Amino acid sequence: MELKPAPEWHTTTWLNTAEPLSLERLRGRVVLLHAFQMLCPGCVARGLPQAQRVAELFNGAPVAVIGLHTVFEHHEAMGLQSLRAFLHEYRIRFPVGVDAPGLDGDPMPRTMRAYAMQGTPTTVIIDAHGRLRRQVFGVHDDLLLGAELGTMLVEAKRSAEAMATNSPASPPASAQCTDDGCTIA
Amino acid sequence: MELKPAPEWHTTTWLNTAEPLSLERLRGRVVLLHAFQMLCPGCVARGLPQAQRVAELFNGAPVAVIGLHTVFEHHEAMGLQSLRAFLHEYRIRFPVGVDAPGLDGDPMPRTMRAYAMQGTPTTVIIDAHGRLRRQVFGVHDDLLLGAELGTMLVEAKRSAEAMATNSPASPPASAQCTDDGCTIA
Amino acid sequence: MELKPAPEWHTTTWLNTAEPLSLERLRGRVVLLHAFQMLCPGCVARGLPQAQRVAELFNGAPVAVIGLHTVFEHHEAMGLQSLRAFLHEYRIRFPVGVDAPGLDGDPMPRTMRAYAMQGTPTTVIIDAHGRLRRQVFGVHDDLLLGAELGTMLVEAKRSAEAMATNSPASPPASAQCTDDGCTIA
Amino acid sequence: MELKPAPEWHTTTWLNTAEPLSLERLRGRVVLLHAFQMLCPGCVARGLPQAQRVAELFNGAPVAVIGLHTVFEHHEAMGLQSLRAFLHEYRIRFPVGVDAPGLDGDPMPRTMRAYAMQGTPTTVIIDAHGRLRRQVFGVHDDLLLGAELGTMLVEAKRSAEAMATNSPASPPASAQCTDDGCTIA
Repeated sequence: MELKPAPEWHTTTWLNTAEPLSLERLRGRVVLLHAFQMLCPGCVARGLPQAQRVAELFNGAPVAVIGLHTVFEHHEAMGLQSLRAFLHEYRIRFPVGVDAPGLDGDPMPRTMRAYAMQGTPTTVIIDAHGRLRRQVFGVHDDLLLGAELGTMLVEAKRSAEAMATNSPASPPASAQCTDDGCTIA
Repeated sequence: MELKPAPEWHTTTWLNTAEPLSLERLRGRVVLLHAFQMLCPGCVARGLPQAQRVAELFNGAPVAVIGLHTVFEHHEAMGLQSLRAFLHEYRIRFPVGVDAPGLDGDPMPRTMRAYAMQGTPTTVIIDAHGRLRRQVFGVHDDLLLGAELGTMLVEAKRSAEAMATNSPASPPASAQCTDDGCTIA
Repeated sequence: MELKPAPEWHTTTWLNTAEPLSLERLRGRVVLLHAFQMLCPGCVARGLPQAQRVAELFNGAPVAVIGLHTVFEHHEAMGLQSLRAFLHEYRIRFPVGVDAPGLDGDPMPRTMRAYAMQGTPTTVIIDAHGRLRRQVFGVHDDLLLGAELGTMLVEAKRSAEAMATNSPASPPASAQCTDDGCTIA
Repeated sequence: MELKPAPEWHTTTWLNTAEPLSLERLRGRVVLLHAFQMLCPGCVARGLPQAQRVAELFNGAPVAVIGLHTVFEHHEAMGLQSLRAFLHEYRIRFPVGVDAPGLDGDPMPRTMRAYAMQGTPTTVIIDAHGRLRRQVFGVHDDLLLGAELGTMLVEAKRSAEAMATNSPASPPASAQCTDDGCTIA
């Protein structure tokens, strides 16, 4: 089975970041893309808090947590000003891109369309090579999400090592190991 | 940093399994050892349900979820008959070993002592080579636990491949990949 | 201790109701007034769901659940159009009044000021005589809120009876009693 | 509809109380009777914590929270010694009676049979006159339970007043009222 490159992102604005982000710029890091709408109850109650915890717990590991605001309804109620206030009130500090309007009158925004998302929340995991590895519609399970991120972090580490030195296997980049165990965060 | 082999288990009885288990017998699989007491509130409310979900979600992957009943107080209230009823009522179906009484009047049971556990619940992760990789006292975070299991599953897969065929890298054993992503469970 | 009449409400618009509401019009019913902002995390996660459950569970009893949108920050992000979309997405079906802007440049809206609320969420209970009986800033406990509503419902029932017939005591209006017990909902 | 007196309790032992309790001795107080088994998951996760919160929140009001250990399965695993350890570990401090074994080989204990309970957890509310007012099998809703307790507390207060002085209506016994509201706890 061939893994395919993740579709590029088409955004109009970025918040919580000095410069616009793209998959190209994030190459070498595992990307957790969280597609949401600020008035989507499941996103607010479950999806965004999960993304926030990933950002905190994997801080230090080569994981980039990115929000994507994919508004496909109530556009007038979820404009940029509203989104800005929302991110402030909910203390969401990771970068958030605003998905570009659909082409040719498509009600679904462009990136959402490119990934064929079914709705929000949608969790997308892209590996360090920019390949789409996982896409889940609805709330994703913490244990599975953790396992997927762990898996791709080891792979990223191995690739980096192979390119750099052909060095022998060593503990994954994300792990701090001591005599009595290894810890990730 | 050298990783050390996990201490052997010393048990008097096993429930939910036809034959007694040992680290030796589980070599090649990642082991999640959950040390608990049936009257420990944190174990009942959080630790055991987490272990149960790992057993369900990672069913199919080379992960063994094992319970260890490490009673260090109220011994008379947590005997074998009580434990059996408890496992039945709480629908715990993974194998559970009963930790052997401490030597020379030690109030702490033998395996608990060998791992220098601080109390219950304690989560221990042992890799496919039988090495102790992680030990957490208290409730462990789902995202981190998932990442640790994911990490060790990839390692286990790579080792198996290296031994068998020196074959090139392929997706981890735990992942079912399709055109639009990879899934673990 | 003298109980005081609850301050009148000053609103600009009402949603989810055919006609504007006032304390006067609700006389004879116990009023649960839930003051919130649509971008207040505690309101969204805890306060509004509690108000919704009261509306459902006490359906049939003389209790009126009323929302009050008391915006004192990010006004531009919480306008009428946004509120309308929010109520739709969160399936909030009880009447919601929009608090009137503060007088003389007061940043706090008028009703919020009249009740001297400290912020959102704030839960206010007004008895069937229109008297302010309880005001809680922050998330209120379900057991206590239930007890307060139960208390005021019995009082309302007794008053109604006293006025109507001077009839002897009977089970409270809210209770459906059978041979084996009484139920409220 | 006639309200009936609650059946008497038949117990073999009492824990967490200096003297055995009976409905007769608790007359004048609203009684929350929580029937449970120490190995019943729903009791441990939901029912007992609810009873504990009632005991804490209504401390000061004439409410008696009483546990009843109604073992109808795994008797050998839930003996007195086990129950004692369980109450200690879960920090349950309200009085708990042990239901008497069923008569003539009845597998259901006597009090459980007298109330025709369907299983555990079962929540029973008895008013200050000793009348059975509410019986719920399964986890009971906090809002409804609060309302039922509030209702019966007002009734108890009115009865006491009527007997004592024929005094005019006053705020319920459970409420502490100030200028800006009334509070129960």
